[in-house]
Amino acid sequence: MLVIGESINASNRSVAEAIASRDREFLQSLARAQVAAGADFIDVNSGIGSGSPEYESTTMEWLVEVVQGATDKPLAIDSEIPSVIEAALRKYRGERLMINSVTAEPEKLESIGSLAAGHQAWLVALAMGTNGIPSSVEERLAACEQIMTHLTQLGLVAEQIFFDPLILPIAVDSTQAVVTLKTLEQIKSRYPAAKTVLGLSNISYGLPNRRLVNRAFLLMAAYAGLDAVILNPLDAKMMSFIKVADMLMGKEPSCRGYIRAHRKGILVD
Amino acid sequence: MLVIGESINASNRSVAEAIASRDREFLQSLARAQVAAGADFIDVNSGIGSGSPEYESTTMEWLVEVVQGATDKPLAIDSEIPSVIEAALRKYRGERLMINSVTAEPEKLESIGSLAAGHQAWLVALAMGTNGIPSSVEERLAACEQIMTHLTQLGLVAEQIFFDPLILPIAVDSTQAVVTLKTLEQIKSRYPAAKTVLGLSNISYGLPNRRLVNRAFLLMAAYAGLDAVILNPLDAKMMSFIKVADMLMGKEPSCRGYIRAHRKGILVD
Repeated sequence: MLVIGESINASNRSVAEAIASRDREFLQSLARAQVAAGADFIDVNSGIGSGSPEYESTTMEWLVEVVQGATDKPLAIDSEIPSVIEAALRKYRGERLMINSVTAEPEKLESIGSLAAGHQAWLVALAMGTNGIPSSVEERLAACEQIMTHLTQLGLVAEQIFFDPLILPIAVDSTQAVVTLKTLEQIKSRYPAAKTVLGLSNISYGLPNRRLVNRAFLLMAAYAGLDAVILNPLDAKMMSFIKVADMLMGKEPSCRGYIRAHRKGILVD
Repeated sequence: MLVIGESINASNRSVAEAIASRDREFLQSLARAQVAAGADFIDVNSGIGSGSPEYESTTMEWLVEVVQGATDKPLAIDSEIPSVIEAALRKYRGERLMINSVTAEPEKLESIGSLAAGHQAWLVALAMGTNGIPSSVEERLAACEQIMTHLTQLGLVAEQIFFDPLILPIAVDSTQAVVTLKTLEQIKSRYPAAKTVLGLSNISYGLPNRRLVNRAFLLMAAYAGLDAVILNPLDAKMMSFIKVADMLMGKEPSCRGYIRAHRKGILVD
């Protein structure tokens, strides 16, 4: 499973402070720590939309340069503002790139989809339209269909699209874990070449022992067909479960990756 | 998920010794500990087939009486020898009973199936015939079909049958976790009223960190439709994951069981 390290996100206070004070060393350490812990992509989020787009664009350019100074891993440009994404693309020097994210809203699909098409970037597509996260499988799939149609017209291929089936907290509605997993399965069945991605932590919002719930949900999602996950790779127990999930799904001849992880001493029980 | 406590099994040396020395207290403590830890059924295995059937029958009668002296929870009579099962049935006083287990072998189906039919017992049915555990989904399903046909003719209803899709170690063949899970899904799809059950630990045979693997596999099996599991309920981390699995599968309005488990302090991260 592809691991997208989520830590460089301006919604984390320490990251926001490091961005504001232009603390390269803090952010580069955070990038390196995520890579050392097994991240395949580094998510980069420069603002929570509270600054002006111009300010956020300048910040994103700086942030991309800083993080790429610390690691060769590809980045996931985390913004829904086309001008901020463009700023990142101007600065980015790497072959593989992810843009995170677009929804079924036509104007976003058009602008961000065109950027992804032009740069042959992978694109995270949230299974929702303008009215927030739908509560049913059918509504989420309808959003995916709109996304697939529009992005295909822009020249993207299914292999570039990472559908996020989205998660609503199970504490609010006890059917929501199954809704997400069934949506995920249906996406894999309808668009076999497309990929799937999830940020896990929303599932456990409002519950005690959240990490326990997140970890359990990851395993179910792995079996439902999850290809990539956005999380904190410094959570060693979660990363151990990802190694096990890959092994159980038959992705490794002779359990190679799992046994290697054991020998490195990074499997946490 | 129904939890069948596996600890009272003569293949455990301490249990074999307690049976040989007729140590009621040891065995009753083990029964009570499993119930306290959340077991719904207590599996009772009086021998590993090395003694004579007569000796094993006498032992089983004694063991059933001892365990029922410690708990009102129903038992799972763990034997493939009809005369041993009959001995247990003579002694058993309880409404619900499980017999563990039968295979697709016709003579076993006939004898043990008739006992289950006569006592309206739940019956664990292993998805295999005479030639050991088949490596493919199709062969396991063929065994299930034979079992279902034969047991139905004997008067059992699907609700009484707990199919075990069986597990081969993933260290030997990296596709085997998926083979088990796909078999499980197919059983639930073909026989919606039938139940499914697994003993987990075979999956991790030959690997390091076995409990980590077993726990991860439980979550995948829960999503694939697992109804019951045979395990050691004193494994607190495993029991915590079962609580989470039930919640994620939407089996609890308002996450009630999970929050109750948290309040009792029995959720282990």
